[in-house]
Amino acid sequence: MEPLPENLFQSSTDLVAAIVQEADTGQVLMLAWMNREALTLTMETKMATYWSRSRSEIWIKGATSGNIQEVQSIALDCDSDALLLKVKQTGPACHTGEVTCFHRRLMTGSMD
Amino acid sequence: MEPLPENLFQSSTDLVAAIVQEADTGQVLMLAWMNREALTLTMETKMATYWSRSRSEIWIKGATSGNIQEVQSIALDCDSDALLLKVKQTGPACHTGEVTCFHRRLMTGSMD
Repeated sequence: MEPLPENLFQSSTDLVAAIVQEADTGQVLMLAWMNREALTLTMETKMATYWSRSRSEIWIKGATSGNIQEVQSIALDCDSDALLLKVKQTGPACHTGEVTCFHRRLMTGSMD
Repeated sequence: MEPLPENLFQSSTDLVAAIVQEADTGQVLMLAWMNREALTLTMETKMATYWSRSRSEIWIKGATSGNIQEVQSIALDCDSDALLLKVKQTGPACHTGEVTCFHRRLMTGSMD
């Protein structure tokens, strides 16, 4: 496993945004947050693990609901403040029961 | 055009994360930030317009580089702190010249 870039998580309280995309369909499922521990656990276990900003704790996606995310790849963006996870999602990603958290349309184009 | 949800941008300094996805390929291109003005301008002009946290100003993606993003749809997530924009990207999305800002692999799975 590659070491994390030096400019990632310079402080133990640093968070990066984690975009979660279904690997098979390309559908964007959710946005979550990771600290160093969450990213390290995710890379070690291949189970998507995040930092809850509201509860201030590590959470394993699907630990309660069973709707786990098996991580297939992780990419870092050019300025090291966002991650893209490609996952195999079990069940719906959203706590509302929707497939994706992005289920409320603000603008719909002619292509949709 | 639908009015913005009441719990979105309750303060004039509120920002939401904007995930940008290429509409045709499904490739995730970048993560940017929007305040109310940036989202309103984006919806009015269909040209992706963001809030720069480092420069504290509105920026129209591609205004300098020509690498504009024509917005086809916008969705809001379940807890109103992230947006998903589907765009038609002209040229590379990343300032490095890469197609996507997510071009640095931290973990590669067996599927890749």
